[in-house]
Amino acid sequence: STQQRPAKTAFKLAVVGGDGIGPEVTAEALKVLDAVSANYGVTFERTEYDLGAKRWHATGETLPDAELEEIRKHDAILLGAVGDPTVPSGVLERGLLLKLRFALDHYVNLRPSKVYPSVGSPLANPGQVDFVVVREGTEGPYVGNGGALRVGTPAEIATEVSVNTAYGVERVVRDAFARAQARPRKKLTLVHKNNVLVYAGHLWTRTVDAVKKDFPDITVDYLHVDAATIFMVTDPARFDVIVTDNLFGDIITDLAAAISGGIGLAASGNINPDKTAPSMFEPVHGSAPDIAGQQKADPTAAILSTALLCDHLGLTEAAAAIEAAVTADIEERTGDARTTSEIGDAIAKRAAG
Amino acid sequence: STQQRPAKTAFKLAVVGGDGIGPEVTAEALKVLDAVSANYGVTFERTEYDLGAKRWHATGETLPDAELEEIRKHDAILLGAVGDPTVPSGVLERGLLLKLRFALDHYVNLRPSKVYPSVGSPLANPGQVDFVVVREGTEGPYVGNGGALRVGTPAEIATEVSVNTAYGVERVVRDAFARAQARPRKKLTLVHKNNVLVYAGHLWTRTVDAVKKDFPDITVDYLHVDAATIFMVTDPARFDVIVTDNLFGDIITDLAAAISGGIGLAASGNINPDKTAPSMFEPVHGSAPDIAGQQKADPTAAILSTALLCDHLGLTEAAAAIEAAVTADIEERTGDARTTSEIGDAIAKRAAG
Ligand SMILES: CC(C)[C@H](C(=O)O)[C@@H](O)C(=O)O
Ligand SMILES: CC(C)[C@H](C(=O)O)[C@@H](O)C(=O)O
Repeated sequence: STQQRPAKTAFKLAVVGGDGIGPEVTAEALKVLDAVSANYGVTFERTEYDLGAKRWHATGETLPDAELEEIRKHDAILLGAVGDPTVPSGVLERGLLLKLRFALDHYVNLRPSKVYPSVGSPLANPGQVDFVVVREGTEGPYVGNGGALRVGTPAEIATEVSVNTAYGVERVVRDAFARAQARPRKKLTLVHKNNVLVYAGHLWTRTVDAVKKDFPDITVDYLHVDAATIFMVTDPARFDVIVTDNLFGDIITDLAAAISGGIGLAASGNINPDKTAPSMFEPVHGSAPDIAGQQKADPTAAILSTALLCDHLGLTEAAAAIEAAVTADIEERTGDARTTSEIGDAIAKRAAG
Repeated sequence: STQQRPAKTAFKLAVVGGDGIGPEVTAEALKVLDAVSANYGVTFERTEYDLGAKRWHATGETLPDAELEEIRKHDAILLGAVGDPTVPSGVLERGLLLKLRFALDHYVNLRPSKVYPSVGSPLANPGQVDFVVVREGTEGPYVGNGGALRVGTPAEIATEVSVNTAYGVERVVRDAFARAQARPRKKLTLVHKNNVLVYAGHLWTRTVDAVKKDFPDITVDYLHVDAATIFMVTDPARFDVIVTDNLFGDIITDLAAAISGGIGLAASGNINPDKTAPSMFEPVHGSAPDIAGQQKADPTAAILSTALLCDHLGLTEAAAAIEAAVTADIEERTGDARTTSEIGDAIAKRAAG
């Protein structure tokens, strides 16, 4: 049939506010999403999931499988933040956040960095920063494949196993090459530590070398992760697309956020490019329990995450409208004294047009 | 007997210039060491070891066991740099540098960072930076405990195992606490990722909590490694002593070098605190093959490494003299156009007094 399938207009959104400032910033993100979606004739039907520290204290549950299966039926997930000092470290991170990323096969963790001229960078001369990190999201040292023996004794031994497969590395490397190809500079940097982690590192290096043949127009280079942190502060403008493993990506994207707009502006998408499960969008920042519930958090990263969400759903105009509204708001910031919700209101108003 | 053992005055030094700029910067370090040692009535008898890329190309050897045993008989080791693009990544790093660190039980990898007022930091406002990273040197993901199956096929799997023991973690944590106690601010920060790497992370966290009881005057805090990189660029002055694992230490010390004096000033000691084997001193920077043999490298990091070497051997006055000479030289730098050997000459002259 030559008939075009009508573009989808009604989206189902699973919302996980989570811990700390998560619910506050998520509320503003939803406010902006609503303001924009009206303009583009789309709707987001929301289901809120009560997951995180409170739920764990009340029930001992982090993410029951039945709830995961409910979440799976949505078109996308918006997540605030996960982690709380009253819960043993790792319980919520592994049992909720990483469980979602792994179960929904979010193998591309997309984290763009940009310096907005009006936002102070801690760097004296950041230069023209505009790069994106493609962080692998389903393998590496994050797989949870570790253990401990004789815990609490002087003979304790604890291990963590980084698992890397050709299957897992190739698919994220291909995605990164494709993203590099869609950008003007067409440059890809592999970040790893292949002089020490030789087994995993050589798999990554060989994979990049092999996939490169299918992308002859892309310039490729390699940096050890330690050297990458140096360039991140001495010459961040050199980066275009970075592809890296789960742990190195975690580290360098926090640094990338810090040297560009700050962690308050860093958005991310946990993407399942094959669309076999919903992708999940969240700010890079954590739950910041020290300022939770005080309307002090900057919701911009959460709001920008909805732009990535719209983009992923094919709503490119809506995504652009959100980004433009954020950029305009940022350009007028001068030592922001507004509340979380005032910032959300201002951006929502601009985004509505 | 109440008689005091005469302080040692004749030291045996094993010298491994290594690859790239390693031999050049090592030559300047030795120049300064000679200039100073004369003043303090000590001598350094040197044995040079021809190890690195050239040797490997000629013989296929990285560090034969017999040579390792020769090196073991020295009081200390001065190392330039290891690594060359003509050798497969990892061969020299694992077979030479890491072999030395592991075989000689260098469990404390000491990496101080300081901002010299006259040296430009890439940070707009670095503040009063003066901290030291105590990086674990004999465990973690560096143990070489990994493997690969079905290499080169689409079914390849590659693993890297991080091994952490109570024995290994406790000894480096105790060392870090003792160093914090000897410093005015008395602060220790554990850097790890205990919300994801829960087995290794909890061992580290529990160990710090336990050892803290023996150091009640030390203030202790914890940062995830990703958050640590943020503070490294937004508030590096907050750090005093950092203790961390082998891989995280590798990453954050390159970043620390970059935000303070730059990688050209960063010195390190691979220390065996129990003195069961010689400790090894080396610049943090790599072999920089692109500028090797051109007299363009800054030998300051190598020279400062000899100050750490003197300190370790109990030659505290000699160490102070080298540091003072370096500081004085740095303070007069204005866009350094001197050759490697001119910088060495200038510092040696000052150090000689
Ligand atoms: C909270 C934590 C598990 C998470 C991670 O390590 O991936 C966070 O740091 C991030 O970057 O999204
Ligand atoms: C060369 C390499 C093996 C080494 C390391 O990773 O330890 C270097 O980066 C360092 O920091 O001394």
